[in-house]
Amino acid sequence: MPESPDPRASQGAPGPSPASAGAPAEDPLAFQDPAYREAVVDLLGAIAYGEISAFERLVEDGKLAPDLQDKVAIEAMAAAEFGHVRPLLDRLTALGADPYAAMAPFRSAIDSFHEHTAPSDWYEGLVKAFVGDNLADDFYREIAAYLDTDTRDLVLASLEDSGHSAFVVDRVRAAIAADHRLGGRLALWGRRLMGEALTQAQRVAAERDALSALLAGGVDRPGLDLAAIGRMFTRLTERHAERMAELGLDS
Amino acid sequence: MPESPDPRASQGAPGPSPASAGAPAEDPLAFQDPAYREAVVDLLGAIAYGEISAFERLVEDGKLAPDLQDKVAIEAMAAAEFGHVRPLLDRLTALGADPYAAMAPFRSAIDSFHEHTAPSDWYEGLVKAFVGDNLADDFYREIAAYLDTDTRDLVLASLEDSGHSAFVVDRVRAAIAADHRLGGRLALWGRRLMGEALTQAQRVAAERDALSALLAGGVDRPGLDLAAIGRMFTRLTERHAERMAELGLDS
Repeated sequence: MPESPDPRASQGAPGPSPASAGAPAEDPLAFQDPAYREAVVDLLGAIAYGEISAFERLVEDGKLAPDLQDKVAIEAMAAAEFGHVRPLLDRLTALGADPYAAMAPFRSAIDSFHEHTAPSDWYEGLVKAFVGDNLADDFYREIAAYLDTDTRDLVLASLEDSGHSAFVVDRVRAAIAADHRLGGRLALWGRRLMGEALTQAQRVAAERDALSALLAGGVDRPGLDLAAIGRMFTRLTERHAERMAELGLDS
Repeated sequence: MPESPDPRASQGAPGPSPASAGAPAEDPLAFQDPAYREAVVDLLGAIAYGEISAFERLVEDGKLAPDLQDKVAIEAMAAAEFGHVRPLLDRLTALGADPYAAMAPFRSAIDSFHEHTAPSDWYEGLVKAFVGDNLADDFYREIAAYLDTDTRDLVLASLEDSGHSAFVVDRVRAAIAADHRLGGRLALWGRRLMGEALTQAQRVAAERDALSALLAGGVDRPGLDLAAIGRMFTRLTERHAERMAELGLDS
């Protein structure tokens, strides 16, 4: 077994990580490119506001819980989500950015996503928490592969599931078993979540040049060509389908 | 300086702690009295549901925040509050109680308190978070003096302020300085919070015999006589007045 003195090495990033080869953790080289720094500030701002927003929605969902036990379970998911916010804001500050200004450009798209996908009952809330949050996480994990090591570690840490997903899977499967019509409704709901997420992601990509440029790469940083972007979306869609299946739902 | 091998010893409980003299941490003697166990289950259930409820209200208040920075600050208070819930539920389970059943008897009084004190704006929310939560904490600290050491440590840990109060004091004082009429309105609001808290506390005391009996003491456990209860309420009122003054408000 090879030695692994750096604890971060064992975490690993999914997929290739071309950026890290040229920009080790201690090397601020990547940040000498103002476009790269701008992209990272955008990315961390988007993730942070996404976490804040998800936190609020999960607490909102808690009010729909059928009993106190389920309420506490969903609120624990929410509190765990909020625990990721502070390190992101601290990193933004360390990068010389105002963390609140960094989040601001993403409020509209993320708020719109939530307005257009307000759960009408407890189960829609559960599916949204599971499918929506994981979809966003998968997307950020894909992007993380193109970041310097430090930023990538921070992003991956902020996406860690606190092991609450099993609760959602359990509750949704039990409810579908008891009422098959619910399964049909929730399957449609899952498709709507995916569609709305793509709509808002596209909006962000169109508005935030630096973030889009990150995926396109730079002189010293390999990026994604159109074929690679296509493969990325295929992976995202496949994982979404796997999660829907895990819930017992057609995607 | 005397040695203090037990880290808990340095935390200390405010006021006298007659119960601990006869019931050290490792001694389950106190719990051989079914009435004492019942009282502790009640107390932990009440505190846990109070934390859950405060958590939800603080997140609700976050939506009224004038900007993203204040929203994050109040939501961080909320998340810290929720962090206290799990240890309380775990202890209830360890005592052989169903933690959700233990919370149930207090939902009505605590929910009523919040329904009757729904903040109409950001500042009422801040004052409620500061004055209301600290008032409840003071009350539980008073009760903690009559508990066995383990339970007392748990209760005191669950009441720890995460240092967010300074934020509330700062925001409220600044707002009053800018608008003196706000000070008058918030002073009335503080009195209403105190009145509603007393109403609901009295309701709980009337309904939960075990909890009331805890304060009254037992054969081997000193309790509070009427004069002592009077002094306790004087202390609670004084501390409430101090907090109102800290906010720059008449009480």
